[in-house]
Amino acid sequence: MFDKYLKKQVEKLLEPAGILINGPNPWDIRVHDNRLFQRLLANGNLGFGEAYMDGWWDCDAIDELFSRILSNRINEKVVTFRLIAGSLIGHLFNLQIPSRAFTVGERHYNTGNDLFTTMLDPGMNYSCAYWENCGTLDEAQQSKLQLVFGKLMLQPDMKVLDIGCGWGGAAKYAAEHYNTEVIGITVSNKQADFARKLCGNLPVSIKHCDYRELGETYDRIYSIGMFEHVGHKNYRHYFKVIKRCLSSEGLFLLHTIGGNESSTSTDPWISKYIFPNSMIPSASQITAAYEGLLVLEDWHVFAHDYYLTLKSWHENVQKNRDRLADRYTNRFFRMWEYYLLSCAGAFHARRLQVWQILLSPKGVTDTFRVPR
Amino acid sequence: MFDKYLKKQVEKLLEPAGILINGPNPWDIRVHDNRLFQRLLANGNLGFGEAYMDGWWDCDAIDELFSRILSNRINEKVVTFRLIAGSLIGHLFNLQIPSRAFTVGERHYNTGNDLFTTMLDPGMNYSCAYWENCGTLDEAQQSKLQLVFGKLMLQPDMKVLDIGCGWGGAAKYAAEHYNTEVIGITVSNKQADFARKLCGNLPVSIKHCDYRELGETYDRIYSIGMFEHVGHKNYRHYFKVIKRCLSSEGLFLLHTIGGNESSTSTDPWISKYIFPNSMIPSASQITAAYEGLLVLEDWHVFAHDYYLTLKSWHENVQKNRDRLADRYTNRFFRMWEYYLLSCAGAFHARRLQVWQILLSPKGVTDTFRVPR
Repeated sequence: MFDKYLKKQVEKLLEPAGILINGPNPWDIRVHDNRLFQRLLANGNLGFGEAYMDGWWDCDAIDELFSRILSNRINEKVVTFRLIAGSLIGHLFNLQIPSRAFTVGERHYNTGNDLFTTMLDPGMNYSCAYWENCGTLDEAQQSKLQLVFGKLMLQPDMKVLDIGCGWGGAAKYAAEHYNTEVIGITVSNKQADFARKLCGNLPVSIKHCDYRELGETYDRIYSIGMFEHVGHKNYRHYFKVIKRCLSSEGLFLLHTIGGNESSTSTDPWISKYIFPNSMIPSASQITAAYEGLLVLEDWHVFAHDYYLTLKSWHENVQKNRDRLADRYTNRFFRMWEYYLLSCAGAFHARRLQVWQILLSPKGVTDTFRVPR
Repeated sequence: MFDKYLKKQVEKLLEPAGILINGPNPWDIRVHDNRLFQRLLANGNLGFGEAYMDGWWDCDAIDELFSRILSNRINEKVVTFRLIAGSLIGHLFNLQIPSRAFTVGERHYNTGNDLFTTMLDPGMNYSCAYWENCGTLDEAQQSKLQLVFGKLMLQPDMKVLDIGCGWGGAAKYAAEHYNTEVIGITVSNKQADFARKLCGNLPVSIKHCDYRELGETYDRIYSIGMFEHVGHKNYRHYFKVIKRCLSSEGLFLLHTIGGNESSTSTDPWISKYIFPNSMIPSASQITAAYEGLLVLEDWHVFAHDYYLTLKSWHENVQKNRDRLADRYTNRFFRMWEYYLLSCAGAFHARRLQVWQILLSPKGVTDTFRVPR
């Protein structure tokens, strides 16, 4: 009886987005356990995601489901105590203090290199690819690196810093294709080991350290998909580190996910299961944080490219599920699917953006056309 | 004796920028009246500019002089009471209330169409041109309009709004080359009359009104070189007007001068003699003002193009000075020269930027590559 009432509430909520309970569309929700409605209404995305992991519901197109939910702002109508608490915690405490910096490395990036080697391109790029004139993920990731290094105008023998180097794919590419010397830093030990092997005898050194420990000066700095772990209380400090470590004629490229509105917390499901202490920056948070330190040279926006990237990662995992099944449970696969496809939907709905922001210490003089 | 002491102070101030008093370089200051030093130290740029208008000093390369002053942040070392007062006024009062909106139109843009027809390109574009592959001002202004309308993806029969249409050059171009219907608004009567004549029988209508009076919906909106008159207290309201007047699938292009740091006042000399109540926005002010209303699609930065544009305008005035001398005094010419060349120096030093910011109401879905 109560379940029926809650189901009606959920149906009413989803109606403007054209989503049906047990309907015929690929984005409709097939419910296996009616306790879903209570969990969804009480805990928002945390409850929805956990219920998916528990097998309480299915959907043939989770990305489209989320795109519809977010485009119609259905999510904003489910306010949960948990979400409010999450925001408060973000306001009151600095979740990204250095002693916690390694948590994300241990939790997420150490998940297992076998999963990531299966999911990602051979270059192990765990960030949005650039699909312009590209047919495969591998091509699109190389195209992204060419885009980044083209904007940075890498020249032989430049000393380049990679903040958040991951498994070393970008550092390797910069050393191999542009003859630069690269210093990469990561907070994951497994990533650092992998990156050192990947880069072999190239002039790349990988350090297991936090960005706040950096001191030397570099001709170029880039940071691809790491700023999401910095946290709003540290944005100013982050850009001070950039300013300190960038030569006066240098360039810095920030590649990050961006949000349309300022926030001081993250989605509780994402925070609990995927990226602890992560936070999506807004444009006003970023611009305020670098103001007076750096000068804007270019701000490139794309979003559909991450939708394509996430779909491609999902496909790679699905194709190799049997092979991975020894090490990962069914619940893990459902969690991972929910992560990749709900994010794909958020990029498709343009609630999330990919930003490549090029900055310099004092402005490049004379004509400067940033290549795209 | 006192003059000698003040001269020493000024010399010491200018030393890091390599600027000499009565030195041999084109950017050095040739002093004709020693009261200059007192006026400069007491009133900063207001005193410096007024002393130039009064013929107390000369310089063969005012643009280079200013580029050196600003690159070395000499200006920040001369803090005058007047500047502080100016900042306070900006903080406490809204200088750009609608009843004052027409002041700038009456003061600056009504200066005299003969001056502007002499100075500007035939299309009467009073904003930064885009010099990529262009040899003349006329070509570069057309290239700028192609850049703007390319980003906006103008299609035949679209209804387009031009906020701050000036003498109608852009509106005419959009109607002529893209077969669109354009509504242009300006706060200057002289500009409105001129624009109506310029656009002849094209589907362009020009209104003499304030942007806050706008109500209809448009497929595309652009605003070239008008945001500088909006004032920081009105930025949020400005973007609310854009949101209200832009169709849900629409695009808005903001072309504005940008500053590296947030400010709530303007240079007192510029404010007194050139643009009353003008204000240069910062990136953090703009991003905060549109947050939650519009989604960023692209942020294009250039600065050297305005240096070239201002130098070209200056050259056009110089070449025709004899012809204009009936209507304008020598003091006016010196004021105008100081305006054009000090601004040219500020763009050269990258203390001022040109920003083209493309925004949409909810984010363009699927692949969207903004043409440049």
